[in-house]
Amino acid sequence: MTTYHEMPRAELEGIKARLDEEYAAIKAKGLALNMARGKPSSAQLDLSLPLLDILDSKADLHAADGTDCRNYGVVDGLPEAKALMATLLDDTPENVIVFGNSSLSIMYDTVMRCWTFGTGGHAPWCTLPAVKWICPVPGYDRHFGVTEAFGIEMIPVAMNDDGPDMDEVERLAASDASVKGIWCVPKYSNPGGVTYSDEVVRRLASMECAAEDFRIFWDNAYCVHHLFDDAAQQDALLDIGVACQEAGTPDRYFKFASTSKITFPGAGIAAFAASPANVAETKRLMGPQTIGHDKLNQLRHVRFLKDAEGIAAHMRAHAAIIRPKFELVARKLSEGLAGTGIGSWSNPRGGYFVSFDALEGTASRTVTLAKEAGVVMTGAGATWPYKRDPHDSNIRIAPTLPPLEELDEAMDVFVCCVKLAAVEKLLEA
Amino acid sequence: MTTYHEMPRAELEGIKARLDEEYAAIKAKGLALNMARGKPSSAQLDLSLPLLDILDSKADLHAADGTDCRNYGVVDGLPEAKALMATLLDDTPENVIVFGNSSLSIMYDTVMRCWTFGTGGHAPWCTLPAVKWICPVPGYDRHFGVTEAFGIEMIPVAMNDDGPDMDEVERLAASDASVKGIWCVPKYSNPGGVTYSDEVVRRLASMECAAEDFRIFWDNAYCVHHLFDDAAQQDALLDIGVACQEAGTPDRYFKFASTSKITFPGAGIAAFAASPANVAETKRLMGPQTIGHDKLNQLRHVRFLKDAEGIAAHMRAHAAIIRPKFELVARKLSEGLAGTGIGSWSNPRGGYFVSFDALEGTASRTVTLAKEAGVVMTGAGATWPYKRDPHDSNIRIAPTLPPLEELDEAMDVFVCCVKLAAVEKLLEA
Repeated sequence: MTTYHEMPRAELEGIKARLDEEYAAIKAKGLALNMARGKPSSAQLDLSLPLLDILDSKADLHAADGTDCRNYGVVDGLPEAKALMATLLDDTPENVIVFGNSSLSIMYDTVMRCWTFGTGGHAPWCTLPAVKWICPVPGYDRHFGVTEAFGIEMIPVAMNDDGPDMDEVERLAASDASVKGIWCVPKYSNPGGVTYSDEVVRRLASMECAAEDFRIFWDNAYCVHHLFDDAAQQDALLDIGVACQEAGTPDRYFKFASTSKITFPGAGIAAFAASPANVAETKRLMGPQTIGHDKLNQLRHVRFLKDAEGIAAHMRAHAAIIRPKFELVARKLSEGLAGTGIGSWSNPRGGYFVSFDALEGTASRTVTLAKEAGVVMTGAGATWPYKRDPHDSNIRIAPTLPPLEELDEAMDVFVCCVKLAAVEKLLEA
Repeated sequence: MTTYHEMPRAELEGIKARLDEEYAAIKAKGLALNMARGKPSSAQLDLSLPLLDILDSKADLHAADGTDCRNYGVVDGLPEAKALMATLLDDTPENVIVFGNSSLSIMYDTVMRCWTFGTGGHAPWCTLPAVKWICPVPGYDRHFGVTEAFGIEMIPVAMNDDGPDMDEVERLAASDASVKGIWCVPKYSNPGGVTYSDEVVRRLASMECAAEDFRIFWDNAYCVHHLFDDAAQQDALLDIGVACQEAGTPDRYFKFASTSKITFPGAGIAAFAASPANVAETKRLMGPQTIGHDKLNQLRHVRFLKDAEGIAAHMRAHAAIIRPKFELVARKLSEGLAGTGIGSWSNPRGGYFVSFDALEGTASRTVTLAKEAGVVMTGAGATWPYKRDPHDSNIRIAPTLPPLEELDEAMDVFVCCVKLAAVEKLLEA
């Protein structure tokens, strides 16, 4: 097949004419479809409905240690909630603090604590002339939003198939003491679906850092979010905590996880794990901020999910719903774009996204065309710091929310818009 | 009756001998009673058990505007939750933001935002050489903990029967631009049970402030927490928002409230109200911190409490449980200490505490004696910034948690310890 780049102008013009017609026909349908955010679908949320029946007025509302979960207290979480969240965090319950409904809030507050109070006895970051951050791209827009809020200078670093470009990460961390951290979604990354290799994890743990208080923000958001039930088709991740202990950098990481995409986003529980020193520091600094988080919701989650095997079984039910959606996206992209040379995309084995790279300079136009045809995508550029993709190429596809039949229609629109934007661009040249 | 101060030494020694015996007898009982924290009792928590049945798996989990409360979104709260919380905040729903489970966290984060980002276009407080705060005393220890965490210098100001000593508050606010705020529990204050008079509220709203970004932190924690059902026996509070609008200082206040002592502490909902400018600023700054709070819990609370009248009815049931406890405390103090000259106390019409002033220099000793006899009180000094009561006099009594029979016993212990500490002190002289 001839790629679009190789086609004679006349042939491209013919394609454009057909795409214009196709696009006009789509627009006439008045669609209202959404592939913008990584939200579970209604069918997925239904899987967790029993969660709402588990703590009724007749239930025992005491934790295993006798705590009445209806009253104040227990700032770091119920012991059984720590044990449950430890399975998501690849850690032991003693190193876990259970927070409220949002891991994003924990990450924001963790940056805030380093910023305002400092960490590990080092100067508060707010007192430094500059603070910089390594941001693997494409990455998660809300991570970038946190560091941007604090005025931290974000430095994009490319993602490879096995994690961030470690040569560049090592160069940055070693050469500049104002580089204080890195955002990582180490498993089924947002949006690329990449799982860091053991070598990448070990290099992160052992690399030389000019800043003694360099911190890896390890957002294991998709730790159990496999698309396939067969272990051979699931990614495995080396724990950063173990790697840092082995490397003699035990305080270098903060780990985060939540049940947001396990039970109910916004009504789940979130947690943090770190070294004993970092856990002690965090408990001390969070003491003035809260008397404790929602223990009834912690208890509800413990009784519903039970343990690692309970979570795994629940996630298999999620996978059964979303796997066909990812398969549909892959098929549509392949049927519509294979061989054209105007797009490449990820084929993740877990997580919530497909990362799509359009012809350079056409991502914004593609998203605009889709929007005008009634299909909302994540904004072009969102996967880069400051929403500035210098290639105007990356688009995050979030296939989980729409029902399969809507996704089918939305992907046809998307493919048409990718092609139309590319042809427009090539004809400009 | 002769006060202890007026007694001849021999008579005091006789009293001490009898108190020593009484104390030894108490100690021998091996009690384990707690009047330390303002926690609702188990019987009070039972009042809210139906809250747990209201959102089961068969319930409609959509908000009135169609939002699926199981999924992400709605950063500032469900419209119906804003309407409910507006009744606690004496405000309109548009000026309300509903947060998570803790008003303390909202207050901490509000200080944090002023500290890190500044408010109203003014310099972030972290960039200033000094930040000071007016702290009416006795006051709430966790308030003082927040300002202490940020290194804000706390200046105690006396509470009168109608609120803080406004002459002193006005002098401090007008004379020093580094004075940036004041903690207020304006109704049934913690621990004094004082409700600010209209005049005090108006003076707070209209006073001259050297700092343009001076802020009143209006923690209306006990807004509906009356001990008596008869309106004539309930305190009324002028709204600070209205007072500030009238005084031309519309951005001077932040208001806070929660359902912590209405439904379940730690598993309730909390909210904030402020001027349109402050609400817009807060929404902008909280955007990077969270995708949204627990909407299922918001919906649960709306369906259970319904509206202002629903809350009032629910609070009457609380009052029926705790009123006898406050009456018991008043009776025990009066029977044991009236006329001795070694103690004075508040007789609140609402809230959660009785403020007790022991003979100067004996509060710590009293609390230690009580603790050694198995009765845990709030630490002496806790009602002052830095836990330093210069008079070593104030003790906060929290009568709500223990059942009535335990409270009866605990108050006997407390009265004995107050007397014993006083007699020891007077004999030292």
